[in-house]
Amino acid sequence: MAELPSTRAAAGAPAPQSFAAGSPRVLVAGATGFAGALAAHLLWRHPRFELVAVTGRSEVGRRLDDLYPRYRVPLQIERLELDAYYGELDAAIVAYPHAAAAPAVGDLCDRGVRVVDLSADFRLSTLATYERWYGEHPRPDLLPRAVYGLTELHRERIASAAIVANPGCYPTASLLGLAPLARAGLIADVVIDAKQGLSGAGRAFDETTHGSLAGENILPYKVAAHRHTPEIEEQLSPLRTAAGASDEVAVLFQAHLVGLDQGELADCYVTPTRPVADDELADLFVAAYADEPFVEVVGAPPGTRDVQGTNFCRVFAKADPHSGKVIVLSAIDNLWKGTSSQAVQNLNVMFGLPETEGLL
Amino acid sequence: MAELPSTRAAAGAPAPQSFAAGSPRVLVAGATGFAGALAAHLLWRHPRFELVAVTGRSEVGRRLDDLYPRYRVPLQIERLELDAYYGELDAAIVAYPHAAAAPAVGDLCDRGVRVVDLSADFRLSTLATYERWYGEHPRPDLLPRAVYGLTELHRERIASAAIVANPGCYPTASLLGLAPLARAGLIADVVIDAKQGLSGAGRAFDETTHGSLAGENILPYKVAAHRHTPEIEEQLSPLRTAAGASDEVAVLFQAHLVGLDQGELADCYVTPTRPVADDELADLFVAAYADEPFVEVVGAPPGTRDVQGTNFCRVFAKADPHSGKVIVLSAIDNLWKGTSSQAVQNLNVMFGLPETEGLL
Amino acid sequence: MAELPSTRAAAGAPAPQSFAAGSPRVLVAGATGFAGALAAHLLWRHPRFELVAVTGRSEVGRRLDDLYPRYRVPLQIERLELDAYYGELDAAIVAYPHAAAAPAVGDLCDRGVRVVDLSADFRLSTLATYERWYGEHPRPDLLPRAVYGLTELHRERIASAAIVANPGCYPTASLLGLAPLARAGLIADVVIDAKQGLSGAGRAFDETTHGSLAGENILPYKVAAHRHTPEIEEQLSPLRTAAGASDEVAVLFQAHLVGLDQGELADCYVTPTRPVADDELADLFVAAYADEPFVEVVGAPPGTRDVQGTNFCRVFAKADPHSGKVIVLSAIDNLWKGTSSQAVQNLNVMFGLPETEGLL
Amino acid sequence: MAELPSTRAAAGAPAPQSFAAGSPRVLVAGATGFAGALAAHLLWRHPRFELVAVTGRSEVGRRLDDLYPRYRVPLQIERLELDAYYGELDAAIVAYPHAAAAPAVGDLCDRGVRVVDLSADFRLSTLATYERWYGEHPRPDLLPRAVYGLTELHRERIASAAIVANPGCYPTASLLGLAPLARAGLIADVVIDAKQGLSGAGRAFDETTHGSLAGENILPYKVAAHRHTPEIEEQLSPLRTAAGASDEVAVLFQAHLVGLDQGELADCYVTPTRPVADDELADLFVAAYADEPFVEVVGAPPGTRDVQGTNFCRVFAKADPHSGKVIVLSAIDNLWKGTSSQAVQNLNVMFGLPETEGLL
Repeated sequence: MAELPSTRAAAGAPAPQSFAAGSPRVLVAGATGFAGALAAHLLWRHPRFELVAVTGRSEVGRRLDDLYPRYRVPLQIERLELDAYYGELDAAIVAYPHAAAAPAVGDLCDRGVRVVDLSADFRLSTLATYERWYGEHPRPDLLPRAVYGLTELHRERIASAAIVANPGCYPTASLLGLAPLARAGLIADVVIDAKQGLSGAGRAFDETTHGSLAGENILPYKVAAHRHTPEIEEQLSPLRTAAGASDEVAVLFQAHLVGLDQGELADCYVTPTRPVADDELADLFVAAYADEPFVEVVGAPPGTRDVQGTNFCRVFAKADPHSGKVIVLSAIDNLWKGTSSQAVQNLNVMFGLPETEGLL
Repeated sequence: MAELPSTRAAAGAPAPQSFAAGSPRVLVAGATGFAGALAAHLLWRHPRFELVAVTGRSEVGRRLDDLYPRYRVPLQIERLELDAYYGELDAAIVAYPHAAAAPAVGDLCDRGVRVVDLSADFRLSTLATYERWYGEHPRPDLLPRAVYGLTELHRERIASAAIVANPGCYPTASLLGLAPLARAGLIADVVIDAKQGLSGAGRAFDETTHGSLAGENILPYKVAAHRHTPEIEEQLSPLRTAAGASDEVAVLFQAHLVGLDQGELADCYVTPTRPVADDELADLFVAAYADEPFVEVVGAPPGTRDVQGTNFCRVFAKADPHSGKVIVLSAIDNLWKGTSSQAVQNLNVMFGLPETEGLL
Repeated sequence: MAELPSTRAAAGAPAPQSFAAGSPRVLVAGATGFAGALAAHLLWRHPRFELVAVTGRSEVGRRLDDLYPRYRVPLQIERLELDAYYGELDAAIVAYPHAAAAPAVGDLCDRGVRVVDLSADFRLSTLATYERWYGEHPRPDLLPRAVYGLTELHRERIASAAIVANPGCYPTASLLGLAPLARAGLIADVVIDAKQGLSGAGRAFDETTHGSLAGENILPYKVAAHRHTPEIEEQLSPLRTAAGASDEVAVLFQAHLVGLDQGELADCYVTPTRPVADDELADLFVAAYADEPFVEVVGAPPGTRDVQGTNFCRVFAKADPHSGKVIVLSAIDNLWKGTSSQAVQNLNVMFGLPETEGLL
Repeated sequence: MAELPSTRAAAGAPAPQSFAAGSPRVLVAGATGFAGALAAHLLWRHPRFELVAVTGRSEVGRRLDDLYPRYRVPLQIERLELDAYYGELDAAIVAYPHAAAAPAVGDLCDRGVRVVDLSADFRLSTLATYERWYGEHPRPDLLPRAVYGLTELHRERIASAAIVANPGCYPTASLLGLAPLARAGLIADVVIDAKQGLSGAGRAFDETTHGSLAGENILPYKVAAHRHTPEIEEQLSPLRTAAGASDEVAVLFQAHLVGLDQGELADCYVTPTRPVADDELADLFVAAYADEPFVEVVGAPPGTRDVQGTNFCRVFAKADPHSGKVIVLSAIDNLWKGTSSQAVQNLNVMFGLPETEGLL
């Protein structure tokens, strides 16, 4: 009798991984969560990386395509034991919660493995800021070795970084929307109202993700208290300073869960430092992103569906003469450009591959 | 052979309307759209109104419970012909698009029928403002007879009004969130980011409402150009003036369609005229709504699901010391408190009934 | 400073319960789950029952309107302690899982409290059948005192029952669709393919209910092994026997979870004992349900949305001359007629109230 | 000032099509509908086909990435004028409604262009059957040149076919589930209950697709009258005959729209010609699909989400000893394997490419 595994294929098995000889060898640590699983999926089908293992802090021994049938990665989830079997690892994507990530990143880093860390542990350059929002940092010594991984802002430093701190999904959308204005010295004040689908809550099973409770809901959360606020401010600050600003901007950031799956929209309401019109905005944004393969400047409001399941960010900017403010709308897929596909984009940069490799 | 109508019940027929003798007689004009149909449903089950007819500009002859099976109103849709058969009408709810509504409202008004108008035609008190946003007004002579129908703000004038201009759904949520701050003279500046389900787009069949296109989407629309902006400003203005403000506030209002059914959330980002703390906000809102049967002041962010299918508005206010701003979150059901159940609330007030009658 | 509870109203508090003097006093045990919470909501707004308490095996001390903001029942969840404070109880709805329910039902029953039990513990009249599907029965002595609570089938016995075993949601839809055919001796064989929204999985938080995993999914489950199969067979059997059948029907029942909230459709594919045409089917169903207030026979396929949030069941029957089979489609709301509102319908019958009281 | 198109990218433009030199040149006719647009998307990113043009009967002059932003195909929609500019065309996918398709297919065929037709016009081999279900056939002369395009059943004949009649989505799922049983002579009778998301209704804008009406609905349709019934029967028939069956099976097929986006599940309830157990079923299905790259035999019920956005079909079979029947569950993405990606799979076969090219 044919043995049939519960959810992965018994016949019609997934194709073996196909990658070029000499490809960098990559590990995904924490592949049981939404972010790690998608990262593993993207690497498995990537023509220039070899996915050598997926590890988890739970579900050890289960196959990843059993846990996530849609991703078809036929690897068994292992326990992370660096000494035993990862001697030839070139890189790792670490998808752990904050505080749990830093020690693992440190262990990898100590062995010369380059890391893209999906947690918040290395996103904030100032230790004091980290500790105010997240508590004690397990490996503050590593902070100088980390580069903030918003590819479009820090591509050159990412190329040679030991640790790339992959941005939060909200900062990704927000900063791609605001960077052109910040660089032009146009931001006097900003309010960000961001919304994302339920995948943004991760694999947590509770009232906020139960399909019957959350499926028909719009739920604001962490009012005046979201940890992505300092991350956005830290990145905006040098851009504004370079444009001559002498003050700091205190960002008001508000997040929402809506009863959808994947998708995120950040509405940025900017009080400009001087009046600005639509044509200047269009020129500014088109110039900023003319050479970016993953940022699309559009002339009408973008929907999250336009970028779902892609590494694209769609940006639209418009002046409101009535209020004197500028509105920037920025749409991404929170799991893709907001998390896992941006991690692969960063890996591409780190290993000198075409930035779009495996992502189009 | 039993004759079976296509979608309404052949056996197990809906109960006949049940209302007290001497109840006011009400017509719903434009019952084929989402708003009119729900108004008819609410009146049909209301113990103190007699729903005498439902009319439509299309679907004439079809039964309303055939067009909207879920509402179970077993009346045939008629053409609106006032002379013929509505001599004894006491009131009407008119659910027409703007510009089409005013002539119908006028005809009813001329016959002494009191009207709750769901369109924008009588919401703006200033003719010039109306014409700037909507074009020529068909019956400007009636503007002085209309009262803005946000029950909580204008209850006394609604009680005796000839025409009640039912508010837009966005202004309903926004104004209930902002009124306590406006009355306290606390609003220096405000940005409103509002989101609602697909029912907010009405019965229009197009790309923005197709379940396969819009079901997994967050779509901003009418950027810097939404007609609800002047409606909100006109209502805020006297509240602020009464509190001593000498200037006007230019509201920035941004709307979004999300792939849900019914529900609306308005996030109001207020720059206050002076620093304000959470305890003052709590006192202010609790005092403002202590006697309101349909406004719930809560201590945590409200989800739209908490008010779905009800006439309730849930309001939550919080100071953000970091940015110095105040956040007010206001959740309603766009079709209920945002439209049709508020119309019934207004009818209750107009006819001296308990305000909650038929709505709990 | 005003104290604001987390999610229930601080101002604009919900209206107090309003019921007639001398109303039966009812308890809801297990009000923390979806079924118990809706039952409490329905009883709280019922004009002829007094909801005296809601109890839970968890969340004790929390208010029910905090756990379920949408239901607005301002009672604190208590631990079920019958001796202490329920001396004057007339009835109870018990919403526990199977096996846990029977002891609680027994305790109530022993004190003379009449019970509607939402679990499976008293649905099967044959102990052996129960034990085959559910394991040991905690109180087999009570089986003779229980009546199967499909109101339309057993109204008279329900009126005087000590224990009413509220049907499963799938049997409710299936049996209302099949009963007219069974009574006419027309069922030779039947396959039932049933689908319901995620609320049918209850408050369980796991992969099958996570909005991001289950929201865009159609998931068949318990293939050839659903416990509702014997429940359907036990109820069909006497109807068929009364019509002269000498054999038993082995039902094939297949269940599915779809990424919606509330709603259930049972497609019953019947091989008839003799050819039957549409007009005979129409006559049969209209006659069967002509006097039923909650069963609607319709002439076109019913959608689940037509009955969402109601106690109605919509039934449609059609012959397929090509295959020689008969198709019966039966739509209900799994949480309402499928569970909680049918429990209230049964309570109405048990206490001699109009069957539709509090349910229209 | 930069000119910004309404929804497609002004900056960050999509990558140009990338394909090998000497690749077959393909046209998509009817690219404005869901099926044609996805086919264009798949061909645009295919490494071995050159997408030379997309045509439409409406939206001429608009860019396809403006109509479908998510697909990023930067071609302008043209009117189909074969004489003018398609002299070097090798193949075409025609995505027209039935009756409209046949003349266009004929024109292409007459010019030596090989066609994959997504309509029903060439799916039925018997003219009489076509005319009974669809009316007069515009080009019956071409029927002998068409091969039914369920790749797994007719791979060899597809390789050299002039016209490939791409199957309907329901027959695709149903036949892949039933073929192993039919070939083994095991099907005595079959009922198919199939469900799909709203994308299955196509771009039609009406009550059945409005997100607010259909989003929370399960809607059966075309009861005992679905045109996919004869298509399934025609394909099953020779498989059964080859296994020795002397009769025909009259399939009962029932379709449903559920309020999701993409995904389809066919539940096939088979009365077997003799008792069959789970181990025999497992062996049968694993053997049938061991070499199929796109059919996955699994050991637990498949969810539609497992195959969403892929060309995979997941199949699960189980015996039900209680009823004596066999249940086969077959899940596909109705737009992918059910329509457009299967068309590309067929093109791969027709042009001697690896069958999985561009589809993994």
